[in-house]
Amino acid sequence: MADTLSAKARDLITRPVLASLTTLGRDGAPQVTPLWIDLDGDDLVFNTAKGRVKERHMARDPRVAVSVVDPEDPYNVVALRGTVTDITPDGADAHIDALAKKYLGVDSYPMRTEGEVRVKVRVRTDHIAMQG
Amino acid sequence: MADTLSAKARDLITRPVLASLTTLGRDGAPQVTPLWIDLDGDDLVFNTAKGRVKERHMARDPRVAVSVVDPEDPYNVVALRGTVTDITPDGADAHIDALAKKYLGVDSYPMRTEGEVRVKVRVRTDHIAMQG
Repeated sequence: MADTLSAKARDLITRPVLASLTTLGRDGAPQVTPLWIDLDGDDLVFNTAKGRVKERHMARDPRVAVSVVDPEDPYNVVALRGTVTDITPDGADAHIDALAKKYLGVDSYPMRTEGEVRVKVRVRTDHIAMQG
Repeated sequence: MADTLSAKARDLITRPVLASLTTLGRDGAPQVTPLWIDLDGDDLVFNTAKGRVKERHMARDPRVAVSVVDPEDPYNVVALRGTVTDITPDGADAHIDALAKKYLGVDSYPMRTEGEVRVKVRVRTDHIAMQG
Protein backbone atom coordinates (compact mmCIF):
# COMPACT_ATOMS: atom_id res chain seq x y z
CA MET A 1 0.00 0.00 0.00
CA ALA A 2 1.65 3.21 -1.14
CA ASP A 3 1.04 6.77 -0.03
CA THR A 4 1.31 9.74 -2.37
CA LEU A 5 3.70 12.66 -2.02
CA SER A 6 2.28 16.16 -2.36
CA ALA A 7 3.54 18.50 -5.08
CA LYS A 8 5.30 20.50 -2.36
CA ALA A 9 7.03 17.40 -1.00
CA ARG A 10 8.11 16.43 -4.52
CA ASP A 11 9.48 19.95 -5.02
CA LEU A 12 11.50 19.68 -1.80
CA ILE A 13 12.94 16.27 -2.69
CA THR A 14 13.79 17.51 -6.18
CA ARG A 15 16.00 20.22 -4.69
CA PRO A 16 19.55 19.34 -3.54
CA VAL A 17 18.55 18.86 0.10
CA LEU A 18 20.01 16.02 2.18
CA ALA A 19 17.61 13.36 3.39
CA SER A 20 17.98 11.37 6.61
CA LEU A 21 17.54 7.66 5.94
CA THR A 22 16.91 5.37 8.90
CA THR A 23 17.59 1.66 8.53
CA LEU A 24 17.36 -1.17 11.06
CA GLY A 25 20.32 -3.10 12.41
CA ARG A 26 20.41 -6.83 13.07
CA ASP A 27 19.18 -6.22 16.62
CA GLY A 28 16.39 -3.95 15.35
CA ALA A 29 18.00 -0.72 16.54
CA PRO A 30 17.47 2.27 14.26
CA GLN A 31 20.46 3.83 12.53
CA VAL A 32 20.32 7.07 10.59
CA THR A 33 22.47 8.32 7.70
CA PRO A 34 22.30 11.64 5.85
CA LEU A 35 22.06 10.77 2.19
CA TRP A 36 21.41 12.15 -1.27
CA ILE A 37 17.90 11.42 -2.50
CA ASP A 38 15.91 11.66 -5.69
CA LEU A 39 12.51 10.79 -7.05
CA ASP A 40 11.81 8.18 -9.70
CA GLY A 41 8.11 8.35 -10.44
CA ASP A 42 6.45 7.93 -7.05
CA ASP A 43 9.42 6.12 -5.52
CA LEU A 44 12.32 7.56 -3.59
CA VAL A 45 15.75 6.53 -4.84
CA PHE A 46 19.04 6.48 -2.98
CA ASN A 47 22.51 5.34 -3.98
CA THR A 48 25.06 3.57 -1.83
CA ALA A 49 27.74 0.93 -2.24
CA LYS A 50 27.31 -2.82 -1.84
CA GLY A 51 28.38 -4.04 1.58
CA ARG A 52 28.00 -0.73 3.38
CA VAL A 53 26.25 -0.96 6.74
CA LYS A 54 23.03 0.64 5.53
CA GLU A 55 22.97 -1.52 2.40
CA ARG A 56 23.29 -4.67 4.51
CA HIS A 57 20.57 -3.35 6.83
CA MET A 58 18.14 -2.76 3.97
CA ALA A 59 18.93 -6.10 2.33
CA ARG A 60 18.02 -7.82 5.61
CA ASP A 61 15.06 -5.64 6.69
CA PRO A 62 13.46 -3.43 4.04
CA ARG A 63 11.67 -1.14 6.50
CA VAL A 64 13.03 2.41 6.45
CA ALA A 65 12.09 5.92 7.54
CA VAL A 66 12.99 9.05 5.60
CA SER A 67 12.96 12.69 6.59
CA VAL A 68 13.81 15.81 4.63
CA VAL A 69 13.86 19.26 6.21
CA ASP A 70 13.87 22.35 3.99
CA PRO A 71 16.99 24.33 5.03
CA GLU A 72 15.15 27.52 4.16
CA ASP A 73 11.87 26.71 5.91
CA PRO A 74 11.73 24.40 8.95
CA TYR A 75 7.96 24.10 8.54
CA ASN A 76 8.47 22.48 5.16
CA VAL A 77 9.35 18.90 6.02
CA VAL A 78 8.74 15.43 4.72
CA ALA A 79 8.66 12.50 7.16
CA LEU A 80 7.59 9.06 6.01
CA ARG A 81 7.80 5.32 6.45
CA GLY A 82 8.76 3.24 3.45
CA THR A 83 9.80 -0.14 2.17
CA VAL A 84 12.85 -0.94 0.09
CA THR A 85 11.57 -2.70 -3.03
CA ASP A 86 14.82 -3.00 -4.97
CA ILE A 87 18.58 -2.81 -4.44
CA THR A 88 20.40 -3.18 -7.74
CA PRO A 89 23.70 -2.35 -9.43
CA ASP A 90 21.78 -1.88 -12.71
CA GLY A 91 22.03 1.76 -13.66
CA ALA A 92 23.59 2.61 -10.30
CA ASP A 93 26.75 4.19 -11.76
CA ALA A 94 24.78 6.53 -14.00
CA HIS A 95 22.49 7.23 -11.04
CA ILE A 96 25.29 8.30 -8.67
CA ASP A 97 26.58 10.58 -11.43
CA ALA A 98 23.10 12.11 -11.76
CA LEU A 99 23.00 12.65 -7.99
CA ALA A 100 26.47 14.24 -8.11
CA LYS A 101 25.14 16.57 -10.80
CA LYS A 102 22.15 17.45 -8.62
CA TYR A 103 24.06 17.95 -5.37
CA LEU A 104 27.52 19.02 -6.47
CA GLY A 105 26.96 20.35 -9.98
CA VAL A 106 29.55 17.98 -11.45
CA ASP A 107 29.12 15.41 -14.23
CA SER A 108 30.81 12.49 -12.51
CA TYR A 109 30.65 11.37 -8.88
CA PRO A 110 34.08 12.33 -7.52
CA MET A 111 34.17 10.05 -4.44
CA ARG A 112 34.21 6.58 -6.00
CA THR A 113 36.33 4.07 -4.14
CA GLU A 114 38.44 1.46 -5.95
CA GLY A 115 36.44 -1.73 -6.35
CA GLU A 116 33.19 -0.48 -4.85
CA VAL A 117 29.96 -1.59 -6.47
CA ARG A 118 27.37 1.18 -6.47
CA VAL A 119 23.76 0.14 -5.92
CA LYS A 120 20.54 2.03 -6.53
CA VAL A 121 18.01 1.65 -3.75
CA ARG A 122 14.32 2.08 -4.50
CA VAL A 123 11.92 2.92 -1.66
CA ARG A 124 8.14 2.76 -1.83
CA THR A 125 6.41 5.37 0.32
CA ASP A 126 4.08 3.50 2.66
CA HIS A 127 2.89 6.19 5.01
CA ILE A 128 3.57 9.91 4.97
CA ALA A 129 3.45 11.30 8.50
CA MET A 130 4.25 14.92 7.60
CA GLN A 131 4.62 16.87 4.39
CA GLY A 132 4.22 20.46 3.25
CA MET B 1 28.19 3.15 27.17
CA ALA B 2 27.99 6.74 26.02
CA ASP B 3 29.72 8.45 23.12
CA THR B 4 30.86 12.07 23.24
CA LEU B 5 29.70 14.86 20.95
CA SER B 6 32.36 17.07 19.37
CA ALA B 7 32.39 20.81 20.04
CA LYS B 8 31.17 21.34 16.47
CA ALA B 9 28.27 18.93 16.96
CA ARG B 10 27.35 20.66 20.21
CA ASP B 11 27.42 24.00 18.40
CA LEU B 12 25.07 22.68 15.71
CA ILE B 13 22.60 21.26 18.22
CA THR B 14 22.70 24.48 20.21
CA ARG B 15 21.49 26.41 17.15
CA PRO B 16 17.75 26.41 16.31
CA VAL B 17 18.04 23.59 13.78
CA LEU B 18 15.40 20.86 13.57
CA ALA B 19 16.48 17.33 14.44
CA SER B 20 15.01 14.16 12.98
CA LEU B 21 14.14 11.69 15.72
CA THR B 22 13.51 8.08 14.76
CA THR B 23 11.54 5.85 17.13
CA LEU B 24 10.41 2.24 16.77
CA GLY B 25 6.80 1.16 16.45
CA ARG B 26 5.25 -1.89 18.09
CA ASP B 27 6.17 -3.96 15.04
CA GLY B 28 9.74 -2.61 15.09
CA ALA B 29 9.30 -0.37 12.04
CA PRO B 30 11.17 2.93 12.19
CA GLN B 31 9.20 6.16 12.31
CA VAL B 32 10.77 9.58 11.98
CA THR B 33 9.61 12.96 13.31
CA PRO B 34 11.22 16.38 12.89
CA LEU B 35 11.57 17.81 16.38
CA TRP B 36 13.11 20.56 18.43
CA ILE B 37 16.23 19.45 20.28
CA ASP B 38 18.53 20.75 22.94
CA LEU B 39 21.52 19.67 24.99
CA ASP B 40 21.52 19.05 28.72
CA GLY B 41 25.09 18.26 29.68
CA ASP B 42 26.05 15.37 27.41
CA ASP B 43 22.44 14.25 26.86
CA LEU B 44 20.08 15.24 24.09
CA VAL B 45 16.70 16.47 25.28
CA PHE B 46 13.41 16.57 23.40
CA ASN B 47 9.92 17.61 24.42
CA THR B 48 6.65 16.01 23.42
CA ALA B 49 3.24 15.32 24.95
CA LYS B 50 2.23 12.22 26.86
CA GLY B 51 0.34 9.74 24.69
CA ARG B 52 1.71 10.96 21.38
CA VAL B 53 2.83 8.20 19.04
CA LYS B 54 6.54 8.89 19.48
CA GLU B 55 6.18 9.10 23.24
CA ARG B 56 4.46 5.71 23.34
CA HIS B 57 7.17 4.32 21.06
CA MET B 58 9.98 5.53 23.32
CA ALA B 59 8.23 4.33 26.47
CA ARG B 60 8.02 0.85 24.95
CA ASP B 61 11.40 0.70 23.19
CA PRO B 62 14.05 3.26 24.21
CA ARG B 63 16.22 2.81 21.12
CA VAL B 64 16.28 5.93 18.93
CA ALA B 65 18.31 7.50 16.13
CA VAL B 66 18.87 11.22 15.76
CA SER B 67 20.12 13.28 12.84
CA VAL B 68 20.72 16.99 12.51
CA VAL B 69 21.76 18.59 9.22
CA ASP B 70 23.16 22.13 9.21
CA PRO B 71 20.88 24.10 6.85
CA GLU B 72 23.85 26.25 5.91
CA ASP B 73 26.36 23.44 5.37
CA PRO B 74 25.27 19.95 4.29
CA TYR B 75 28.70 18.58 5.26
CA ASN B 76 28.05 19.55 8.87
CA VAL B 77 25.81 16.79 10.14
CA VAL B 78 25.24 14.79 13.29
CA ALA B 79 23.95 11.22 13.03
CA LEU B 80 23.81 9.00 16.09
CA ARG B 81 22.17 6.11 17.89
CA GLY B 82 20.89 6.70 21.39
CA THR B 83 18.85 5.37 24.26
CA VAL B 84 16.00 7.12 26.02
CA THR B 85 16.91 7.18 29.70
CA ASP B 86 14.04 9.30 31.04
CA ILE B 87 10.58 10.51 30.05
CA THR B 88 9.19 12.84 32.68
CA PRO B 89 6.66 15.62 33.14
CA ASP B 90 8.99 17.17 35.74
CA GLY B 91 10.22 20.46 34.36
CA ALA B 92 8.69 19.70 30.96
CA ASP B 93 6.53 22.86 30.81
CA ALA B 94 9.50 25.12 31.52
CA HIS B 95 11.51 23.08 29.02
CA ILE B 96 9.03 23.50 26.13
CA ASP B 97 9.02 27.24 26.86
CA ALA B 98 12.82 27.26 26.67
CA LEU B 99 12.66 25.43 23.34
CA ALA B 100 10.05 27.93 22.08
CA LYS B 101 12.47 30.68 23.04
CA LYS B 102 15.27 28.96 21.17
CA TYR B 103 13.31 28.13 18.02
CA LEU B 104 10.64 30.83 17.85
CA GLY B 105 12.08 33.62 19.96
CA VAL B 106 8.99 33.71 22.21
CA ASP B 107 8.78 33.31 25.99
CA SER B 108 5.93 30.81 26.08
CA TYR B 109 5.24 27.83 23.83
CA PRO B 110 2.27 28.98 21.77
CA MET B 111 0.94 25.60 20.60
CA ARG B 112 -0.17 24.00 23.87
CA THR B 113 -3.28 21.87 23.60
CA GLU B 114 -5.96 21.80 26.31
CA GLY B 115 -5.26 18.97 28.72
CA GLU B 116 -1.98 17.83 27.20
CA VAL B 117 0.80 16.77 29.54
CA ARG B 118 4.20 17.83 28.25
CA VAL B 119 7.10 15.44 28.85
CA LYS B 120 10.82 15.96 28.65
CA VAL B 121 12.68 13.14 26.96
CA ARG B 122 16.33 12.52 27.75
CA VAL B 123 18.50 10.59 25.30
CA ARG B 124 21.94 9.21 26.00
CA THR B 125 24.23 9.19 22.97
CA ASP B 126 25.39 5.61 22.48
CA HIS B 127 27.19 5.77 19.15
CA ILE B 128 27.95 8.74 16.95
CA ALA B 129 28.14 7.65 13.31
CA MET B 130 28.84 11.09 11.85
CA GLN B 131 29.60 14.50 13.24
CA GLY B 132 31.43 17.63 12.11
